[in-house]
Amino acid sequence: MSNTNTPSVAIKQLDANSKNFAAELDALLAWESVSDHAVVTAVDEIVAGVRARGDAAVVEYTQRFDGLAVNAMAELEMSQAVLQQALKDISDEQRQALELAAQRVRSYHEHQKQASWSYTEADGTVLGQQVTAMDRVGLYVPGGKASYPSSVLMNAIPAKVAGVGELIMVVPTPKGERNNMVLAAAAIAGVDRVFTIGGAQAVAALAYGTQTVPRVDKIVGPGNIFVATAKRKVFGQVGLDMIAGPSEILVLCDGKTDPDWIAMDLFSQAEHDEDAQSILVSEDADFLAQVQASMDKLLPTLDRQDIVKVSLRERAAFIHVHSVEQAAEVVNRIAPEHLELSIADPEAMLPRIRHAGAIFMGRHTAEALGDYCAGPNHVLPTSGTARFSSPLGVYDFQKRSSLIFCSPEGASALGKSASVLARGESLTAHARSAEYRIKD
Amino acid sequence: MSNTNTPSVAIKQLDANSKNFAAELDALLAWESVSDHAVVTAVDEIVAGVRARGDAAVVEYTQRFDGLAVNAMAELEMSQAVLQQALKDISDEQRQALELAAQRVRSYHEHQKQASWSYTEADGTVLGQQVTAMDRVGLYVPGGKASYPSSVLMNAIPAKVAGVGELIMVVPTPKGERNNMVLAAAAIAGVDRVFTIGGAQAVAALAYGTQTVPRVDKIVGPGNIFVATAKRKVFGQVGLDMIAGPSEILVLCDGKTDPDWIAMDLFSQAEHDEDAQSILVSEDADFLAQVQASMDKLLPTLDRQDIVKVSLRERAAFIHVHSVEQAAEVVNRIAPEHLELSIADPEAMLPRIRHAGAIFMGRHTAEALGDYCAGPNHVLPTSGTARFSSPLGVYDFQKRSSLIFCSPEGASALGKSASVLARGESLTAHARSAEYRIKD
Repeated sequence: MSNTNTPSVAIKQLDANSKNFAAELDALLAWESVSDHAVVTAVDEIVAGVRARGDAAVVEYTQRFDGLAVNAMAELEMSQAVLQQALKDISDEQRQALELAAQRVRSYHEHQKQASWSYTEADGTVLGQQVTAMDRVGLYVPGGKASYPSSVLMNAIPAKVAGVGELIMVVPTPKGERNNMVLAAAAIAGVDRVFTIGGAQAVAALAYGTQTVPRVDKIVGPGNIFVATAKRKVFGQVGLDMIAGPSEILVLCDGKTDPDWIAMDLFSQAEHDEDAQSILVSEDADFLAQVQASMDKLLPTLDRQDIVKVSLRERAAFIHVHSVEQAAEVVNRIAPEHLELSIADPEAMLPRIRHAGAIFMGRHTAEALGDYCAGPNHVLPTSGTARFSSPLGVYDFQKRSSLIFCSPEGASALGKSASVLARGESLTAHARSAEYRIKD
Repeated sequence: MSNTNTPSVAIKQLDANSKNFAAELDALLAWESVSDHAVVTAVDEIVAGVRARGDAAVVEYTQRFDGLAVNAMAELEMSQAVLQQALKDISDEQRQALELAAQRVRSYHEHQKQASWSYTEADGTVLGQQVTAMDRVGLYVPGGKASYPSSVLMNAIPAKVAGVGELIMVVPTPKGERNNMVLAAAAIAGVDRVFTIGGAQAVAALAYGTQTVPRVDKIVGPGNIFVATAKRKVFGQVGLDMIAGPSEILVLCDGKTDPDWIAMDLFSQAEHDEDAQSILVSEDADFLAQVQASMDKLLPTLDRQDIVKVSLRERAAFIHVHSVEQAAEVVNRIAPEHLELSIADPEAMLPRIRHAGAIFMGRHTAEALGDYCAGPNHVLPTSGTARFSSPLGVYDFQKRSSLIFCSPEGASALGKSASVLARGESLTAHARSAEYRIKD
């Protein structure tokens, strides 16, 4: 381990042609979030407390963990007037930026909305799927330093576009500290109710309901280890978004983008937290050296250089590849949350990309644009889960019911097959139920 | 508790107008699947063993738990020739029934396939979503009495329609016992590889990969408590379908369907297992009595009457409602896995139904038809989770990547907003990355 006080950070160098590359890449990507025993025990107790005692338990935990001198749950609900006031209190520039972002996020997500469908078969049988929105969704917003207004927009707007009836936000206000940008974002996104509660107690209140907090159908939004552990615990009782790991970026560059731009794109990921991961992939070894030089030059100018240094030292890598095919292979093996294709013809590369949360195409599309206001969601699958999951979207707040409306003829024909198959599974009441509908 | 040896079962009667109805309904629906400590400990050990020792551990657990005298993983792979032989060994009638079911399931699921989309903004910025199939999916098929060929079709076909590259089936063969119908279904559905392994060791092998079993991106299919616990454990490492609770049906009847039909529909659910739940809702109190009489008459004729009796006694209910509105309210509160609308005009009822896994419309559409061959999936959200989840479908095997391709003008305009918002969140490397792309 090198010293954290070195002025620059030498990025780990990998070569995709090296014999040990697969193992080195595995080691680079290794990440597992573990809830330790003490956290699990604490969360179990909090969730059980809220289920058993409702509001009283939530008030008690909020007194204890957030240092709030409140006596009743009613004091922990924030009125719409407070949200509107926050919207007035932020600067005009901030308000306009939030409103532009909200409008762009809304119009992108409108494209994701799914409609019911059905078709009729020759014998009159109708088959289809009815698509409906969830009734009520809970949005967890962290307090303190990890409190991001952009996350409020990214989580709330797809739910609203889906047509969710009621959107309940919970946001802890430790020692009474509020974030006006977060409250303004809630006002713009149309959040219906806000409770100033957090931690496992907020997750439990949303999952099971209390006298005051209504039970929701799904909980979305990021949180600390207590929140993540509580979400795992209530999985099945309510729907959940994914439980996010550290954020990552993979920049694929052909060597023709300004190395300062690429250095800053990598820093923008690394500044999130010490576990964040920044990876640069290029066929051009000279360019990798140029980006290292840019990073050395720019690192001292960063506000969050202490975090950036740890993140780069522990988790960053430059990967030298030797063909377009090899570049695509590396991308797909990593299945990055954010993929920047800083190359001349990103559209030609697209068909080779099988796994990525979001793809930022061309030299001008910095990841930061997508984080805030391009339109697509910034809640993305991390830690290689883009292999099987998708950005948060309207589809996460809609659900489907199968529709089957058999004509008498259809029921009779299908009944014969169903009877054979049911008897093959020794489920004879199934068979007899189908046989009642056979006509001959 | 009444005696299980009574010749008939008096179904629990609820009235939706009663003062205690909400609490009675909560009690009726209460269900929680709990993995006890011994199961969790055993599963933790098995999963750790497979991660550490791969094939050797899988072989060892298969010897121990399935009583198979095998020495190497290669002996636990089943060839395509064995599947094809199974297809020859079943009866013509069974083969035709499986093939009809497969063809109908395939053509229904084709309607669910989603396509990539994009749109171009005035300044040339392109936004969209690229939809791709997963590379490799694992399908768990239980051995023994819960081994259902229909489940093989219902899980495998949507994955194949989605375009999944490789579909790996695992099915335990305790003491060498094989189910030809299951193997024939695998042949018809186009399963790519089959391993005769099961339990937590099969889940771990699929999730992490071994020397022989390739790592998959998602695991689907039902299993016992060891399988369910192992799935929970590997959640995040791979994608999962939902973890199913006991199966349930809610029949809403206007009193004009033959009470014997309704009785058999309720039995067809109850015969699954002792925890299965059958609920009949009607405005017609006389009809509820008629169905009770039909059940008394038919119960002694059932093959699985011991299971049915326990299920009915412990979990069934007749609910008397007093209006269409109240009926819809009860349905939505229960959010049933299977909803049978045995009424004159089911289409008129549909807009009132907000939560249900599958809706069987009209007197002729027995649930059993949907279980086997109507076309829609029989893997459905149980225990009220239709509030937030959907039938298994092609969408469960596809995933999405956001696409953002900013024109220089678009990047410049968006960069200004992103900069304001990033600075509001104290993420100044984000801001500077965006600012590099501002033109003026």
